[in-house]
Amino acid sequence: MTAVLPHQTRTMPAAARRALPDRTLSAHAGGKIGIAPRFAVADADDLARVYTPGVGHAATAIARDPERVWDLTIRRNAVAILTNGTAVLGLGDIGPRAALPVMEGKALLCKTLGGINAYPICVDAPTVDELVAVATAIAPTFGAINLEDVAAPMCFAVERRIRDTLDVPVFHDDQHGTATVVAAALRNAARVVGRSLADLQVAIVGAGAAGTATTELLLALGVGDVVVVDRHGILHPQRPGIDARKHDLARRTNRAGRRGDLECALRGADVLIGVSRPSIVRPEWLATMRHHAIVFALANPVPEVMPDAAPSNVAIFATGRSDHPNQINNVLAFPGMLRGLLDGGARRVDLATSAAAAIALADLVPPDDLGPHHIVPSPFDARVVPTVARAVQRATTHR
Amino acid sequence: MTAVLPHQTRTMPAAARRALPDRTLSAHAGGKIGIAPRFAVADADDLARVYTPGVGHAATAIARDPERVWDLTIRRNAVAILTNGTAVLGLGDIGPRAALPVMEGKALLCKTLGGINAYPICVDAPTVDELVAVATAIAPTFGAINLEDVAAPMCFAVERRIRDTLDVPVFHDDQHGTATVVAAALRNAARVVGRSLADLQVAIVGAGAAGTATTELLLALGVGDVVVVDRHGILHPQRPGIDARKHDLARRTNRAGRRGDLECALRGADVLIGVSRPSIVRPEWLATMRHHAIVFALANPVPEVMPDAAPSNVAIFATGRSDHPNQINNVLAFPGMLRGLLDGGARRVDLATSAAAAIALADLVPPDDLGPHHIVPSPFDARVVPTVARAVQRATTHR
Repeated sequence: MTAVLPHQTRTMPAAARRALPDRTLSAHAGGKIGIAPRFAVADADDLARVYTPGVGHAATAIARDPERVWDLTIRRNAVAILTNGTAVLGLGDIGPRAALPVMEGKALLCKTLGGINAYPICVDAPTVDELVAVATAIAPTFGAINLEDVAAPMCFAVERRIRDTLDVPVFHDDQHGTATVVAAALRNAARVVGRSLADLQVAIVGAGAAGTATTELLLALGVGDVVVVDRHGILHPQRPGIDARKHDLARRTNRAGRRGDLECALRGADVLIGVSRPSIVRPEWLATMRHHAIVFALANPVPEVMPDAAPSNVAIFATGRSDHPNQINNVLAFPGMLRGLLDGGARRVDLATSAAAAIALADLVPPDDLGPHHIVPSPFDARVVPTVARAVQRATTHR
Repeated sequence: MTAVLPHQTRTMPAAARRALPDRTLSAHAGGKIGIAPRFAVADADDLARVYTPGVGHAATAIARDPERVWDLTIRRNAVAILTNGTAVLGLGDIGPRAALPVMEGKALLCKTLGGINAYPICVDAPTVDELVAVATAIAPTFGAINLEDVAAPMCFAVERRIRDTLDVPVFHDDQHGTATVVAAALRNAARVVGRSLADLQVAIVGAGAAGTATTELLLALGVGDVVVVDRHGILHPQRPGIDARKHDLARRTNRAGRRGDLECALRGADVLIGVSRPSIVRPEWLATMRHHAIVFALANPVPEVMPDAAPSNVAIFATGRSDHPNQINNVLAFPGMLRGLLDGGARRVDLATSAAAAIALADLVPPDDLGPHHIVPSPFDARVVPTVARAVQRATTHR
């Protein structure tokens, strides 16, 4: 990795002169993105065009015809990476300041992989009302809002309240991005073990943003049955104290009416999808799954169960880690999905968006290359973004 | 002017394919800024450093010590150009969408001239409460907030409410930037005509953001007396119906207790500073000003009175236009002032900030070069930004 821009401040404040402890931390020093001028301003004539009085023409044109904001400004290629820092990575509610390096990383990848101008907006807005107010207020500047690392169930309430009122799509990566890469990986894993999605019994561990969205997408793609497990065990409609959202999820899953804990949920399952916490699955429980079992243990950085502990009935193992085969990482989805939403002038993200992206992403791995250690393409495969973007663009509700 | 970045979208939406009417408008097509990656991400190792799991180290470091947000993120060099579009240029309340090209222009100049990463945040927040809420929420992402083109008196209420609660400075260009360049220009104009600031009788036309801030700064710099004129005439404390803010301004100005209209205010004045509306000053009124009069007619794009109409008693004439000598433009102030606020870790902007910037800016023109047509430096003089920044940094209240 090479620094491609010179240091951006002329002098460095005291805080920045502190010794940075290691090579990883140094990659974040001073931030990972900057602003790039799209025009060189070298003389008074340039100044008169890009600033006063010339800029008045562009402002007036948009005031007369608001649609022109899409061609006379940055908006058509601009995304807000919006978070209140309530559920950052596996680190929890660490707040907007500590969330900033993560959102910068996302913005860096949006640009590098998708050509998208994304800017991190980390906000002091701990409640649903406050976050809705900020998202609504900033929408005129952006062509899409990427909601990121907002805790469940707050994220569902926020998304529900803004998605019908804004004129731009609200992409929640923890839901839409994760569901898309998981569905793509499962589509290919099923091919490898010679099973149809309709025959699969899937256990999803985690009923937060990722677990809920993944459940909905897998059902939409025709997966046989899903059992969702949260920290209190298997979701079923009669479970005491179940809230409205999980009750709704329970009604649409668990056809066999199973009850019990995580261990019970795995017994006889074909697929385990973990989007929960590190090390909560015991290796011996995997042995109770069916033959040719598929395990996606996606908790980061430590999976629900480590791949080297898997018993022999597990045919395919995937994690979120880059040091194991089959890395299931949202970076396979969000740059292309955002690219497609922007280019398609999308107003909203729905199941059709994720389904189209998942199928396109999965089908990028040619049948001959598919194997137990190769169920998803590389994020550095140059076909990923344009292929996902095209699929999303075809599937979107247009502006 | 040359495009320095390739087109940022891979496909162009229908709206963008519309013919652009002229060369000026084409400078704004697709936006004037983009995001620049500061690191090249080329392989899985890079990805692991800038995104998961590596980014977790930076997030954790900030969660443990919030001050590290200043060295491990973009924040120390990041400015929000925040507007609700209620008073854009001379165009009025055209809203956040139509304001976007203007804020982009500002961001472009921040980068080009000051090396600052500024991002436009144009918001649907038409009330004081809403704008305060947005500014407060987004503050953790930015090292300074540049409030821009917010109508008076709303801008005063917003600034007052946020400046004591945020841990970053709130720079309102229409106040602080304008006052600074006007004061710098007046300091040099007085030198040219051989007068001391303390002897000058100044008439300021316009009691909005610019007029109010300019009045306060000139008084702080020791100008003899100021008379402020709004659309109802000269401000004096007994004027019927005067509001609290203008009453306060009236109490501190107009020592001679003048009453009357704009024409009265100019009679016998040494200086006219127009920060109001086009063509509201009749050329013959200028003839009633004192010998060696100084006229700054700064309404944009059409001044309060045109320079070629000035009678012979006017020694120095300045406008906001690039096609006349003595262009008094905020671009002389805001890049350097923001640079200094960021580098100094400032918590707030006050009169000392503007005073220091004004003096430094004025003193960049060597005495031998001063003349009726040369009272301010060129915005393309490479000394402007570092000189203003250093002066501001020395004058700031530190974080």
